[in-house]
Amino acid sequence: MSHPPILPLVSDEDASPDVKAVFDDIRATRRSDFVNNFWRALAHDPAQLRRTWESVKAVMAPGALDPLTKELIYIAVSATNNCEYCTYSHTAGARAKGMTDAMLMEVLAVAAKANETNRLANGLRVPVDEAFLPPRA
Amino acid sequence: MSHPPILPLVSDEDASPDVKAVFDDIRATRRSDFVNNFWRALAHDPAQLRRTWESVKAVMAPGALDPLTKELIYIAVSATNNCEYCTYSHTAGARAKGMTDAMLMEVLAVAAKANETNRLANGLRVPVDEAFLPPRA
Amino acid sequence: MSHPPILPLVSDEDASPDVKAVFDDIRATRRSDFVNNFWRALAHDPAQLRRTWESVKAVMAPGALDPLTKELIYIAVSATNNCEYCTYSHTAGARAKGMTDAMLMEVLAVAAKANETNRLANGLRVPVDEAFLPPRA
Amino acid sequence: MSHPPILPLVSDEDASPDVKAVFDDIRATRRSDFVNNFWRALAHDPAQLRRTWESVKAVMAPGALDPLTKELIYIAVSATNNCEYCTYSHTAGARAKGMTDAMLMEVLAVAAKANETNRLANGLRVPVDEAFLPPRA
Amino acid sequence: MSHPPILPLVSDEDASPDVKAVFDDIRATRRSDFVNNFWRALAHDPAQLRRTWESVKAVMAPGALDPLTKELIYIAVSATNNCEYCTYSHTAGARAKGMTDAMLMEVLAVAAKANETNRLANGLRVPVDEAFLPPRA
Amino acid sequence: MSHPPILPLVSDEDASPDVKAVFDDIRATRRSDFVNNFWRALAHDPAQLRRTWESVKAVMAPGALDPLTKELIYIAVSATNNCEYCTYSHTAGARAKGMTDAMLMEVLAVAAKANETNRLANGLRVPVDEAFLPPRA
Repeated sequence: MSHPPILPLVSDEDASPDVKAVFDDIRATRRSDFVNNFWRALAHDPAQLRRTWESVKAVMAPGALDPLTKELIYIAVSATNNCEYCTYSHTAGARAKGMTDAMLMEVLAVAAKANETNRLANGLRVPVDEAFLPPRA
Repeated sequence: MSHPPILPLVSDEDASPDVKAVFDDIRATRRSDFVNNFWRALAHDPAQLRRTWESVKAVMAPGALDPLTKELIYIAVSATNNCEYCTYSHTAGARAKGMTDAMLMEVLAVAAKANETNRLANGLRVPVDEAFLPPRA
Repeated sequence: MSHPPILPLVSDEDASPDVKAVFDDIRATRRSDFVNNFWRALAHDPAQLRRTWESVKAVMAPGALDPLTKELIYIAVSATNNCEYCTYSHTAGARAKGMTDAMLMEVLAVAAKANETNRLANGLRVPVDEAFLPPRA
Repeated sequence: MSHPPILPLVSDEDASPDVKAVFDDIRATRRSDFVNNFWRALAHDPAQLRRTWESVKAVMAPGALDPLTKELIYIAVSATNNCEYCTYSHTAGARAKGMTDAMLMEVLAVAAKANETNRLANGLRVPVDEAFLPPRA
Repeated sequence: MSHPPILPLVSDEDASPDVKAVFDDIRATRRSDFVNNFWRALAHDPAQLRRTWESVKAVMAPGALDPLTKELIYIAVSATNNCEYCTYSHTAGARAKGMTDAMLMEVLAVAAKANETNRLANGLRVPVDEAFLPPRA
Repeated sequence: MSHPPILPLVSDEDASPDVKAVFDDIRATRRSDFVNNFWRALAHDPAQLRRTWESVKAVMAPGALDPLTKELIYIAVSATNNCEYCTYSHTAGARAKGMTDAMLMEVLAVAAKANETNRLANGLRVPVDEAFLPPRA
């Protein structure tokens, strides 16, 4: 059994009107009654809850990149930072958007390879090739 | 002017036959005469050069994910780890595969947002929702 | 001379009305004509610029913690992540809010010590003491 | 049930005189009989135990910054590095020094925001503004 | 009880011929019938399993550094990144190659000290001494 | 030309007696007149300078591990964290203790490989094998 959270999760019953409004928007946006623990922990600061939810909603919306690609990027960063909660939640989120096992294995292969070559480049202090530099303004 | 690399870059003239063979494969694979500095630094250990190149080539090849998506993931991880060389080189690589400015801004927005929420989840020790857990085998 | 940014900085002349509105709010909030490079780089995505600025403004405003304490935390995290830009910019920001050299040296001493003991705890997999666990809900 | 530590925790009964002397100083300094697991794990190397305890005691003592501010910085770094032990122990330590729930939520908001903007600055390779640079000696 | 893995572990019975061949090489190389969970998780992508195993085998083989020293470096990096699995598995691997408790405590002391001084150098932006720079090619 | 340090480096002329005493011990310990920039930056807080120097001296001294092995670990961690100063200074330090180019290439290969497999283990949430767990006390 894992340890309890630092602050207790806020249930629907204990939610203030400000918190309830955000929970309602989460439900409406996702077309699901489920509000996951991350938001219930953040609910101890209703303004932070709203700010974080609004920005996540905007960042993850379809744009120049589709929502599945964005979830894959989230998984890659969460594996790099070793966030257990985010690894499980965004893997589930990506699956709901169509990620297959083969895609997951490739996301992790690329993320892991980047973590490897990042350290080779840093450890050898490789100078950036002129060909890679953007033009100076 | 930035600092010199830890080990000098290996030029075509100084390349041993083993190194030259890898450089040739880089050129053939990319259909370009250009061999960038990362490989010229790794060339001090020809076996490591070959191993790293072969694995990067395999990981970045088209598969369940297309090469552009893989470059975007590389950028996200490199920004997370703050690898200057990798940020410049993979941004250039992604552009060559079709990445627009708008796509780059979204990759970084997602990567940065993941870095933010990873720390909120970790700092509050949010328990993983049962709904996100894979079935036990 | 350092490398050019990945995307050119957006000058006042090149700013779209949406970008200009954010720049104006930065100036009004800080009571200064100066808009630093971070915002000029983000301006390539006006929605992201606004979102990031609004959230930074809210997070760094006086609340349960005063603005100077918040700048000190920003410095500690930026040193941990090795963000050169953020180290210079938030050190300057903290000084403007009253940070002395002695305070800076202590911020870095604490941040560095946390980075040290974090790895001792992780490397030895020290179990969390019952006395430190929050009560279960 | 979590995994056992890499090395067993050293109990009072098993403590060598050198270890016992450090445990006694921990108790005297904190005016509490409690010696937490971190020190009991480090006790496998008595010289390292003493060195680490002496430096933590010195770094966390009142100085240009007060002890509560130092605990807040410790929390921010520990959340950034994802050290479970340190997150629980320093959250408890900060509470004992007066940290409220509202303060904790703000510490994490600032730490998380720094983690976000660090990656935007790194990913875009934003050049440091001249205005932020210290004068050259 | 810890959470289930993201993808189920591949048992000997479920292993495809490609996977079985890698498992057999792991057993032959280590002269042991034991195939640990890391490889059973990677087995969902047989090409990635083979590539990762072949490169780990090559990197960890005796060379300019002996295998025990390589395991110590693995422990230091895994503690730095806070990889629970890798901390336990490489500590066990190092012990099998002769690591004593005293050696483990010193590895972690050095790794932790590097994590500390890395942040002091970064936070103060200490310029690299000319004496430390390699000669320019 | 790189940016100036956050605080000016303390020259021998400007060193207080407390700082001078540490500089003298650095010189005596290393049998060299050279005091590198790291210590000159830390000298703004003489107590922190002494504490950091004393602990680095103790941690890096011969013990269960020899000084060269310790330098290799320092390089591996510094490459992982991307500390430019530490990469250059500890590479120079390791060379002075006998590190060859071949050894350096292997240190970085192991460190990079650990960075890669750490993320595969984290991203797949691989459960720790019972065989790797230490006995419960």
